[in-house]
Amino acid sequence: MLHKPGVTESLARNVVATRWDDISSPVRHQAKRSLMNFFAVTLAGCRSRPVEIALRSLAEFSGGRQATVIGRSVRLDALSAAFLNAACANVDDFCDTHVATVIHPTAPVAAALLAFAEWRQASGADLLLALILGNEVQARIGLAISPSHYARGWHITSTCGVFGAAAGSGKLAALHERQMVWALGMAAAQSAGLCECLGTAAKSVSVGNAARNGLWSALLAENGFDGPAEPLAGVQGFYHALAETPDLSVVTDGWGERWEIMATSYKPYPCGFVIHPVLDCVLDWRRDNPTAAITRVVVRGHPLLGVRTDRPDISTGRESQVSVQHAVAAALTTGKAGLDQFTDACVRDPKVAALRSRVEVLRDEGFSTIAAAVDITTADGKTHELAQPAARGSDANPLSDHDLEAKLRTAAAGWDAHYDATPLIDAIWALDKAADVSRLALLAVPR
Amino acid sequence: MLHKPGVTESLARNVVATRWDDISSPVRHQAKRSLMNFFAVTLAGCRSRPVEIALRSLAEFSGGRQATVIGRSVRLDALSAAFLNAACANVDDFCDTHVATVIHPTAPVAAALLAFAEWRQASGADLLLALILGNEVQARIGLAISPSHYARGWHITSTCGVFGAAAGSGKLAALHERQMVWALGMAAAQSAGLCECLGTAAKSVSVGNAARNGLWSALLAENGFDGPAEPLAGVQGFYHALAETPDLSVVTDGWGERWEIMATSYKPYPCGFVIHPVLDCVLDWRRDNPTAAITRVVVRGHPLLGVRTDRPDISTGRESQVSVQHAVAAALTTGKAGLDQFTDACVRDPKVAALRSRVEVLRDEGFSTIAAAVDITTADGKTHELAQPAARGSDANPLSDHDLEAKLRTAAAGWDAHYDATPLIDAIWALDKAADVSRLALLAVPR
Repeated sequence: MLHKPGVTESLARNVVATRWDDISSPVRHQAKRSLMNFFAVTLAGCRSRPVEIALRSLAEFSGGRQATVIGRSVRLDALSAAFLNAACANVDDFCDTHVATVIHPTAPVAAALLAFAEWRQASGADLLLALILGNEVQARIGLAISPSHYARGWHITSTCGVFGAAAGSGKLAALHERQMVWALGMAAAQSAGLCECLGTAAKSVSVGNAARNGLWSALLAENGFDGPAEPLAGVQGFYHALAETPDLSVVTDGWGERWEIMATSYKPYPCGFVIHPVLDCVLDWRRDNPTAAITRVVVRGHPLLGVRTDRPDISTGRESQVSVQHAVAAALTTGKAGLDQFTDACVRDPKVAALRSRVEVLRDEGFSTIAAAVDITTADGKTHELAQPAARGSDANPLSDHDLEAKLRTAAAGWDAHYDATPLIDAIWALDKAADVSRLALLAVPR
Repeated sequence: MLHKPGVTESLARNVVATRWDDISSPVRHQAKRSLMNFFAVTLAGCRSRPVEIALRSLAEFSGGRQATVIGRSVRLDALSAAFLNAACANVDDFCDTHVATVIHPTAPVAAALLAFAEWRQASGADLLLALILGNEVQARIGLAISPSHYARGWHITSTCGVFGAAAGSGKLAALHERQMVWALGMAAAQSAGLCECLGTAAKSVSVGNAARNGLWSALLAENGFDGPAEPLAGVQGFYHALAETPDLSVVTDGWGERWEIMATSYKPYPCGFVIHPVLDCVLDWRRDNPTAAITRVVVRGHPLLGVRTDRPDISTGRESQVSVQHAVAAALTTGKAGLDQFTDACVRDPKVAALRSRVEVLRDEGFSTIAAAVDITTADGKTHELAQPAARGSDANPLSDHDLEAKLRTAAAGWDAHYDATPLIDAIWALDKAADVSRLALLAVPR
């Protein structure tokens, strides 16, 4: 009887078989863009309180100094560095998004891979290939269980991130097919994370674990730690426990014909994605009208904009990330929509608070989630009609390479005003030619 | 308006408020029995292949030498020691059982607590209290989500063990109520493990994580890492994601009136619990008839005995743990039912294999799961009718203190023939009087 491979085996086979030569130039470039964005958001988040506490707590246990903690002068063992850098990349919800699943893919995968690559002195091409494959596995498993998985309360970035980190780390470790199945099985056994934790530090535990435990799964598999033959589709496996009606074919069909990393969006602003087209309108207008006195703002957008972000009354920076009233008021007051505009201090700013109360939100089925219109009425009685059909950073209007460099430079400047980001940016664009990436993350630590 | 506490808050309050003085003498004594059993099964498992690989893999990353790895001369950081000792205690399925949930409670909780207590130099009373409370939280959360949770494929020892380890470690850290809620929230965010992994090394990853991540949750909470207010019952929380129809009241009702640790069974034999009454019959008879030639064995028991263990054809030691035919044949051949009787070598033994084929299993609704009858026909044509109404080790027929000591001595002798178990046994019985337990686990390492 012919052996019919199961879904996990087929997936493992695909990951093991895919070579750098199979990856086209635009996909390779997108992987660099994802890393550029990863370093930007990690430098932006590295001073946040959850990261500070986690670092202090982990350092007591960490042994080997195998890997860099981005933005810090301390080094930690590779597992702990993977945990911290992933938590850090995701802490401000400023990281990339795989729109169809709402997975933030690069935080767990890149954090695991950078720690591992630094320790094992991998090449740049191997790192990029592992990143593309890790993101692919994570997104495909996510697609197979969407939308019921997220709707049930699972924090999909965490639950699927561990698979991405395991597959990517397994690729970097050159696992053979059976070991790759084991690594995916251990990822399944460690898949966890709940949306109930969003808005608290606890979110960072499951995101950090996704990176750490994915890497841990690959290392155990490399050392011969075995797992079940069919962890995804087995009768007591991942799909049965964590999904309602999984679509198995999505995990392996058309492998290599498209890459999900190409469906990744990078955020220009550290707030809910549905607010982005509104901010595009408002910031453009503010640039040309820096001193106008505003009496009223009416925002129209997809119903989700209202459902998720119609919050005129807020009191913390964290809440402000999902308040369209705050985003509009802060952007019109300061002319910016960066991390400083989503802080407790900015929320308390009397000028911003006054303007928030003048922002109204209308829900309109005629808009897509990446589109919005804004009417701004000024003290002279004039109304300025603005519209953005496709938000900057969305699939239809992606951030340029220059935008991503600027995002990194801005984040780096907020972290250390004397830091020169150029060597890191240059190293990322040249990654495919690097024989050894073990010094890459060291370009993102204090001098 | 009065604040009505949520289920997590009430649970946290109960754990924080319970004092050593609230614990009656039989419950205190049962906690010592659970520790006795824990050391027995950990010494029995410490040379297993998954534990060897995990130790080798973890040692590269471990820093602080805060805690003992039981059965080894190496020391590791407290998180890594918690992982290894829990994996080790559970690796042979020889650990204790909370029958109503089929949780193996002490492996994750005691492993976390021993590592933590050793590092922080806790007292014996504090350790025992934390163990009782950790087991309580774990069992109550398990009861609230049973039986649908396990039926869905969740490995309940892992998924609930992380709560027990978090609550117990939090008690040992003297967390206040709000920190305890945070610790339980981080436990919820890390709750994972699948039955699909049973029978493979991957099972040990989620069991080890339950201990490690529970301790990690408590340490983070101690350092101010916050979490959601209602991680258990929140709309995107643990119950919603991991259970079908949770019974919330079970988690807090009647707190302090009964203790679930009293509903714990300890196994005399390292195999499936339903086989135990059969082994009682067979071993007793064999003691009086050591040389009899056996032609046929008919076993009658609860239908579950047939469903789970009617496996005449097996090829590995691991499979043999759930084969009643093998258990009977090995016990009748060797007169024992210890770890040596459930190995690959014993499965291959021609005498045992021959006898396995002569064992028949009948399913009979008239038996409870702890009862069985066995008819042994000998070469002289006689049939010997044996019966066990309540298996040794079950609630109705618990192992005596002496049995538990003997279990530890036997396990220790298999580990190191020159080891003297008496100091460890004495220290466990005297634990409530120990001012500092930091040297307890050191009594279970090679000289």
